[in-house]
Amino acid sequence: MASKDEKITMLHGAGGTIMHDLVKNYVVKAFGGIADSEIPLEAMDDAAVVGDIVFKSDSHAVKPIFFPGGDIGRIAISGTVNDISCLGAQPFALACGLVLEEGLLLSDLERVLASMREACLEAGVGIVTGDTKVVEKGALGGLVMNLSGIGKRTAALDSNLEVVRKKRELKARWTLDSNLAASDKIILTGAIGDHGIAVLSAQQGLKFGSEIRSDVKPLNKMVQKLLGEVGGVVAMKDPTRGGLADALNEWTEKSHVGVLTYEDKIPIHRDVQTACEMLGLDPLEIGNEGKLIIGVVPDKAGEALEFLRQTPQGKEAQIIGEATTQFKGVAMQTLVGGKRIIARPVGDPVPRIC
Amino acid sequence: MASKDEKITMLHGAGGTIMHDLVKNYVVKAFGGIADSEIPLEAMDDAAVVGDIVFKSDSHAVKPIFFPGGDIGRIAISGTVNDISCLGAQPFALACGLVLEEGLLLSDLERVLASMREACLEAGVGIVTGDTKVVEKGALGGLVMNLSGIGKRTAALDSNLEVVRKKRELKARWTLDSNLAASDKIILTGAIGDHGIAVLSAQQGLKFGSEIRSDVKPLNKMVQKLLGEVGGVVAMKDPTRGGLADALNEWTEKSHVGVLTYEDKIPIHRDVQTACEMLGLDPLEIGNEGKLIIGVVPDKAGEALEFLRQTPQGKEAQIIGEATTQFKGVAMQTLVGGKRIIARPVGDPVPRIC
Repeated sequence: MASKDEKITMLHGAGGTIMHDLVKNYVVKAFGGIADSEIPLEAMDDAAVVGDIVFKSDSHAVKPIFFPGGDIGRIAISGTVNDISCLGAQPFALACGLVLEEGLLLSDLERVLASMREACLEAGVGIVTGDTKVVEKGALGGLVMNLSGIGKRTAALDSNLEVVRKKRELKARWTLDSNLAASDKIILTGAIGDHGIAVLSAQQGLKFGSEIRSDVKPLNKMVQKLLGEVGGVVAMKDPTRGGLADALNEWTEKSHVGVLTYEDKIPIHRDVQTACEMLGLDPLEIGNEGKLIIGVVPDKAGEALEFLRQTPQGKEAQIIGEATTQFKGVAMQTLVGGKRIIARPVGDPVPRIC
Repeated sequence: MASKDEKITMLHGAGGTIMHDLVKNYVVKAFGGIADSEIPLEAMDDAAVVGDIVFKSDSHAVKPIFFPGGDIGRIAISGTVNDISCLGAQPFALACGLVLEEGLLLSDLERVLASMREACLEAGVGIVTGDTKVVEKGALGGLVMNLSGIGKRTAALDSNLEVVRKKRELKARWTLDSNLAASDKIILTGAIGDHGIAVLSAQQGLKFGSEIRSDVKPLNKMVQKLLGEVGGVVAMKDPTRGGLADALNEWTEKSHVGVLTYEDKIPIHRDVQTACEMLGLDPLEIGNEGKLIIGVVPDKAGEALEFLRQTPQGKEAQIIGEATTQFKGVAMQTLVGGKRIIARPVGDPVPRIC
C-alpha cells in the first residue's frame, strides 16, 4: 500500500524499474486474477490473448505532438500495430480514444488525423470505433490519445511455429517474451535511438548537425512476411521506453536466460551517437519506435537476417547477440574488450517519447 | 477543412451538436472507408462490430475524479461494459490505458484501481492488458483513462432477435440505434440526471438538501437477462453526455422515425428536479451513467417493463414514449398539455461528466 503522501513522478511513466514496479504493485495487483486469459495481465507481455484474439491498448502522450519524422498519431497507430505484431498476430481493427485540450488548433487535429489515416493505410488496418473528450488547457501539449487494437492468428504464425518446433520444443502458440532459450539469436531490425533523440531535439529546440528523424512506422507487414517466408521466430519486442536495455532485460527475466550482446554489432547512426555523447545519454536506454528485437532459433538466424535486410524497414538489421545459460541478466561485449552488465534502467532519460 | 485559427473548446467534448459535428467532420472523415466492419465507424453507434467481435473504446476525463456515488474508474468500467451491452453483446475482456498526472497521490490511484476491480467483479469481466503514461501537472485533475473492451454474441441476443422477428422484420443481427420502427415502445430504466448533478455538485461544492449520488454501474447482467428471458428488444443506448435529449434525437435520426415522449412518465428524483430548477438546467440534457433507453416491439413492452422493475438497476423503469411516423424528431407531451420539440442540445450543460 502507498504511504500517505507518496506521489506520481515523471519517472513512473518512463519505462524502467520505477514504472515496472508501479504497474506490478498497483495495476496488476488491483486487476489480476479476474480475467480468464491465455496471456493474462500478469504476464505483462506486449499484448494479451483471450481466446484467439490478441488485445492491446496503448495511451500516447508524446510531447511535442509533432516532431521530426512523425507525430502522436503515427506513433499511436504504429505502437498498437507493432505490439500486436510482436505476438505474431495480425491486427484487424483499431479504436481511437482522443483527449483534446481546449485551445488545440483544429488544423493541428486535422494534421494528426490525416497522419493516422496514412499510417492505417500503410498497415492495412482501419479504425472502427472511438471516443472524443475535451479537457481544459493544461500541460498536455494539445492532446493525448489511446489506441486499442485487436489481432488474430495467421497462417504465417502457425507456419513459423512449425519451423521452430522442428528445431526445439516450444509450448507457446504465440511469439512471447518468455519463449527465449539458450543459443537463440537476437536480431535488431535497425539503428537505435533515432526516435528518442528526434523527440528530445523537438522538446529542447536542439540541433545535432543534420536533422535526426524518428523512424516510427507500422511493422506488421514485415513481421508477417518474416514469419511466413522464413520462420523460426520465438519472440519479438519493440524497444520503446527504456530502450534496448529495458527490452533485453525484460526478456532475460521472463525467459530465465542470460543475453550476451556485442557492442560492435548494435547499429547506431553517427548523429545519434554524437548527440548521446554531447548530452551524456546512453543510447541503449533511449526509446525507439519502428524497431524490433527478434529472437530466432539459431539455425534460422542467418536466413532471417538476410530476409530482413531486403525489406525497407530492416535494411540495417544485425544479429546483436544470443541467449545463454552461462549467466543471468544482460551483458555486453564492449568495443574495448571485456564485458559490462547492462542493467535495467531506472527510466528512459527522455520524458514523454510516446 | 478547419479555418486557420479555429480552436477546440469545451463544447467540442460535451455531447450534442457541436461534438457530433467534430466527430463527423474530422474523425469519421479522416478514418472512414478503410476498415471492413459490419457496424463501421461511420454508423457512429455505441460500439463497432468486426466479424462477431464487438469493439469499443471510451476515454474518461471526469473531474473531479471522485464524486458522490462513484469515481473515474467506476465510470470507465461501466461505460465500456454498457456500450458493448447496448449492441446486445456480452463483454469478455477489457483493456485500461492510464494517463497519470505528476503529483497524483498514489493512494488516490490505489482507490481508483480498487473501485475498478469492484466494478469488474460486478460485471463479471476482467482487465487483461493496458498501459501507463505520466504527464506533467496540468488541468487533468489527477488522471484520465481509456477503457477499451471486446464483446461477443450470446444465446440471449439470438433468442431476443427471434422474438423480434416473430413480430416484425429486422435485418440487423444486433440491437442498434437504427433499428427503431413506428410503434416500438421506449423504456427508460430509471431516473435521469443523478449522475450529472452529482458531478456538478462535486465540481462546484454545491449542496442540494440531501446528497445526490451518481448511479454509475455496469448493466450487462440486467441486459443479458432481459434479452434472454423476455426478448423483443431492438435498440439500447446509454444517455450519457447530452442526456436523454441527445440520445432520443440520435435514435430518430438513425432510425428515420419520430419519437413521442411523455413528460409525466420520465422519472426524475425530486432533489435533481429542484437542483435543475435552481441552476436553470434542463434535466433532459444532463448526462447519465447507469441508465439505458431500450426500444422494444410493442407487444413485448409491458413484459419487458415488469421484468426490469424486478431488477435492482431497473426498479424505477418507465415506458416513456414510442416511435412514430407522424412526425420527425423528438416531441414531448408536456404536463400542462400540448407538445414541445426536444431539440438535440448544443452540448451537455455540465462539463467533464465522464
